[in-house]
Amino acid sequence: MKWEKKDIISIKEFSRSEIEFVLQKSAIMEKIMHKSATSSLLSGRIMASLFFEPSTRTRLSFNSAMYRLGGNVIGFAQSTGTSVEKGETILDTAKMAEGYSDLIVIRNPLEGSVRFVSEHVKVPVINAGDGANQHPTQTLLDLYTMQKEFGGIDGLRICLLGDLKYGRAIHSLAEALKQFNVELKLISPPELRMPSRITQDLVELGVDVNETSKLDLSDCDVIYATRIQKERFPDPQEYESVKDAFILNKEILPQLKENAIILHPLPRINEIQPEIDETKYARYFEQARNGIPVRMALLCLLLNKKFW
Amino acid sequence: MKWEKKDIISIKEFSRSEIEFVLQKSAIMEKIMHKSATSSLLSGRIMASLFFEPSTRTRLSFNSAMYRLGGNVIGFAQSTGTSVEKGETILDTAKMAEGYSDLIVIRNPLEGSVRFVSEHVKVPVINAGDGANQHPTQTLLDLYTMQKEFGGIDGLRICLLGDLKYGRAIHSLAEALKQFNVELKLISPPELRMPSRITQDLVELGVDVNETSKLDLSDCDVIYATRIQKERFPDPQEYESVKDAFILNKEILPQLKENAIILHPLPRINEIQPEIDETKYARYFEQARNGIPVRMALLCLLLNKKFW
Amino acid sequence: MKWEKKDIISIKEFSRSEIEFVLQKSAIMEKIMHKSATSSLLSGRIMASLFFEPSTRTRLSFNSAMYRLGGNVIGFAQSTGTSVEKGETILDTAKMAEGYSDLIVIRNPLEGSVRFVSEHVKVPVINAGDGANQHPTQTLLDLYTMQKEFGGIDGLRICLLGDLKYGRAIHSLAEALKQFNVELKLISPPELRMPSRITQDLVELGVDVNETSKLDLSDCDVIYATRIQKERFPDPQEYESVKDAFILNKEILPQLKENAIILHPLPRINEIQPEIDETKYARYFEQARNGIPVRMALLCLLLNKKFW
Repeated sequence: MKWEKKDIISIKEFSRSEIEFVLQKSAIMEKIMHKSATSSLLSGRIMASLFFEPSTRTRLSFNSAMYRLGGNVIGFAQSTGTSVEKGETILDTAKMAEGYSDLIVIRNPLEGSVRFVSEHVKVPVINAGDGANQHPTQTLLDLYTMQKEFGGIDGLRICLLGDLKYGRAIHSLAEALKQFNVELKLISPPELRMPSRITQDLVELGVDVNETSKLDLSDCDVIYATRIQKERFPDPQEYESVKDAFILNKEILPQLKENAIILHPLPRINEIQPEIDETKYARYFEQARNGIPVRMALLCLLLNKKFW
Repeated sequence: MKWEKKDIISIKEFSRSEIEFVLQKSAIMEKIMHKSATSSLLSGRIMASLFFEPSTRTRLSFNSAMYRLGGNVIGFAQSTGTSVEKGETILDTAKMAEGYSDLIVIRNPLEGSVRFVSEHVKVPVINAGDGANQHPTQTLLDLYTMQKEFGGIDGLRICLLGDLKYGRAIHSLAEALKQFNVELKLISPPELRMPSRITQDLVELGVDVNETSKLDLSDCDVIYATRIQKERFPDPQEYESVKDAFILNKEILPQLKENAIILHPLPRINEIQPEIDETKYARYFEQARNGIPVRMALLCLLLNKKFW
Repeated sequence: MKWEKKDIISIKEFSRSEIEFVLQKSAIMEKIMHKSATSSLLSGRIMASLFFEPSTRTRLSFNSAMYRLGGNVIGFAQSTGTSVEKGETILDTAKMAEGYSDLIVIRNPLEGSVRFVSEHVKVPVINAGDGANQHPTQTLLDLYTMQKEFGGIDGLRICLLGDLKYGRAIHSLAEALKQFNVELKLISPPELRMPSRITQDLVELGVDVNETSKLDLSDCDVIYATRIQKERFPDPQEYESVKDAFILNKEILPQLKENAIILHPLPRINEIQPEIDETKYARYFEQARNGIPVRMALLCLLLNKKFW
């Protein structure tokens, strides 16, 4: 396959073979990383990191990926104190960054804003989250983690757990999984079910979907947990009545399959108890760490730097 | 010419031959940049970037310039959270930075503060804006842009447009243009005219100055637009009555000279309409981009690193 | 001696020979620095700099040290805008950083928090200040400064001056000095005396301790001044009555020993008047600068990079 994307805006634009291409290159990148702390693949290149909305994990892992490749980073971690506060548009800010860098990573609360920017600047653009809409590199590292653990994604029984209604990471992942032969178990409080347009889409594409509000994980290979936020419930009492029903703690361990893994986009609050961290099922910190080789691979792909 | 400045504090301290020297070296630096993304001219050197007042463009372009030269950057992007909040003086902060770096770039709201610092530390200091006073590297990149477009500055008819009373960039540019054989057209609302001390100075030095509040751009080679801020008007109604009279939009295009260019220090709000961006006259994004070679040249000059 | 520490959490865990080992290696590092601006000892390595609480000096000098060694830095300068605000624990944040970097530097307001983190991550951890508790690299650079000035620490008569009750830097330094044959003079307002548990400890270990509230510095080799903060006094009038009694100004100079030096952890407000800065006694800016070789040495030691 030849890589032909200029930008990474939405996981919806990835064909199955494009996803597999990224996962395969990420694995190569991980081997390069393990051989040596240093690489000079992107030596002298500058990444602009424009976070109009705060982030720790995504911002730091993009920075780390760029530094591991010998490149450098300019940018800002929040919009306070930037010219955005003076009324500059995101496009003008991006055009400035275009003049100072070789590639732009943007997080902006406005849906569609990153695509808009990508259509008006010449340098590659990566969407690091545009509001409730898309966060494609999160999905790619989620898939990379599954592939690394199980050797492939087809055939897996994957449980998406928690807030399936509002979670950006969940929706992007479901979107990507359409393209694979997986079985999906959707576990959530009734108030936070997966939007029916996504479920219908999945079913139409032949994905076996099972929706429930019962925390039965006994048949799952991958458990992808997310946080249930109090503010999502119109009635605080409803929140109180469901909040403890979807927490992963020691008591759920006996029901798990031998090789099951637990993932989470992080940060987690209490939805996975710390007592799980040291068990053989926990993979959420490895998952975060997998963001490095995946983002390194993407940076090289977009900057036309062959490493395989 | 031999470069003898330790610091860059005010454009007033630049002779014509010093300005020309910087512009000439900036052009060489731009060629070096185009040949290779990587340079190791300032490898191992550290720039302290002390922004007591926020900035996006200036801060990011200094950082980018330093990285393009192989150097590194330490510093802060705003004074909240620094020891300044504990009551440390700017001089103590700069003396600390002197111990940790090879060169200091400072933006501080207090006029004269950067000069004061430069007189008390041994490492080179660059003024990245001291309140309403000076921002010399902005002026140098403005001049570089004109020279690059027209092959020289002498003989140009330059229009300064908008808020000529308060604009730091405008005053510095006027100051520098005294040394060239240019004609100046000053277009502003009557309330925001260029201070008479500057106009008189220009006239005495033989610059042909024409002041007006009418937006006639038909005879200008360079149109340097700036923002008119509502808060500059004591009476909001006065603002309303003038605000639309100085906006550059499609309607003004027919009157422009064939080779005219439009500049702006950015960020712009609405004083240049986006419909101008794609026209052949727009040069404000190139102008911002020109900050890179100019600042790269200055960093090397101050750190005694010859590159020509 | 063989270096065996994984982390640097508290100066209490340093034996005398470990302190001397660090000081000796810092001196070697300082020579390496003077030979060349560039080193590639930690090329390709990434330091995570997690400042949950603001800092200028400590943060910038760790960054500078890492860059001087060819490494890179990711992190944040304050907790606003990080996932900590969403409720993530410091341990989860550190585990994330562990996945993205080779070594973690943390400042956190909670006493004991950095030790807790160090026990749960595999990469080396440096405590850059945990509340009122410990700031070991400050003490090491304080000792390095004394050794550099006097060739050794044994035999020195050291005055600790100002707020001896609350100062973290003072307590850590006193802790370390227990291991040397020094004489201590403790000068403070009665309200801000050194806690008796520390004084007793010192005396029991054979240190000659002299407490007073009189500013007599005539017999001191080292004067280590600290700030007296108004908010430490329950009664503002008490503050007014003592505040001027402990200020170092020109009038105290005649009583000083010929070779005495004045130190201060900085930032200082008015407790050392600027008129002292240019005298032969002032060493506080050199002291800050000494943070670079000391931190460079520590970074290499923890990352198993031999440089001697």
